[in-house]
Amino acid sequence: MKPSLTFWYELASTYSWLAAERIEALAVQAGVEVVWRPFLLGPIFAAQGWTSSPFNLFPTKGRNMWRDMERQCALMGLPPIVRPDPFPPNSLLAARIATSLPEAQRQLFSRAVYRAEFTRGEPIADRAVLMSLLSDPIGGPEAALAAAEAPDNKAALRKATDQAQSLGIYGAPSFTTASGELFWGNDRLEHAIAWAKREGQVG
Amino acid sequence: MKPSLTFWYELASTYSWLAAERIEALAVQAGVEVVWRPFLLGPIFAAQGWTSSPFNLFPTKGRNMWRDMERQCALMGLPPIVRPDPFPPNSLLAARIATSLPEAQRQLFSRAVYRAEFTRGEPIADRAVLMSLLSDPIGGPEAALAAAEAPDNKAALRKATDQAQSLGIYGAPSFTTASGELFWGNDRLEHAIAWAKREGQVG
Repeated sequence: MKPSLTFWYELASTYSWLAAERIEALAVQAGVEVVWRPFLLGPIFAAQGWTSSPFNLFPTKGRNMWRDMERQCALMGLPPIVRPDPFPPNSLLAARIATSLPEAQRQLFSRAVYRAEFTRGEPIADRAVLMSLLSDPIGGPEAALAAAEAPDNKAALRKATDQAQSLGIYGAPSFTTASGELFWGNDRLEHAIAWAKREGQVG
Repeated sequence: MKPSLTFWYELASTYSWLAAERIEALAVQAGVEVVWRPFLLGPIFAAQGWTSSPFNLFPTKGRNMWRDMERQCALMGLPPIVRPDPFPPNSLLAARIATSLPEAQRQLFSRAVYRAEFTRGEPIADRAVLMSLLSDPIGGPEAALAAAEAPDNKAALRKATDQAQSLGIYGAPSFTTASGELFWGNDRLEHAIAWAKREGQVG
């Protein structure tokens, strides 16, 4: 069985962006298959009594996050980060679209959303912005939007969020292996991939 | 000027322990001088409305932290982690003793506290335990305890905690460079050392 890793990401999450930029090269090198799984942090934060991102609720933590992102972008050779206003933006429609797309297109679209959001400061809650980020969807952007807003697809995103919560996920990005091993944070990506690879070899 | 880095640590913090085990070798290799600065997270958490460690307040986060510590200890070749009960233990007296010691002894004592706490589960709030961890203090353990509880030394620890807060520190371990650059977390230790080294070269 090919080793695999599930990549749990929130489209409004800064560190999820960094993981989205790094994961493919690391996974290919290790021979690990990655499943991109968008979910929403809002309901998970709400369940523990948070009404916004911890980066807003705890301002010193937020200040350090933005500074750390500047440093991380420089280290990774990414463009300087632009802070979306508001932060976090509403990522519901973007997550629904990502959910509705086939795996390969989902990765492309998700990276495009992150770059629009964090390198150009574009409002990713905006339908027109999201439509401009869809690269040649079957049937055109309107059909893609309709698919995103179909009841089954909305339910699929809710289910992903519920599943994330039941796996013990409390932040993004997170990574889970086939056996249920959970890693949290862009800083644990290498460890998660190595773990998935080892599980694939022994499993 | 020799490049330098301040290592802000809390003696009840699991990830501060990992940094305490790693920092000397990395700093020596980079030619960076490290100042060990114990402080208390309790007042900083209290200021943002937390009555305990976030690892207790947010149980999913706590579960992942303990699992991550198991994995990190294995990666680093450390003994398996033992969870102190209660967690976090009261680290006030340990921090006072660490504050009162000269730099070289402070490092030795702090690592001894962490190992007692996290590899043997010893209660570091206990005077007798702390006395057993002091390696040949001048005047014996009783004199060391008296120095730790002298009004000036108590004030020095309060001042360190106040200074941490004014530098924007909200968790441990944290690292600050001479210019005030702040890094949070054991995962940022390498970056903090590289930054301090570069500051020393250009400064």
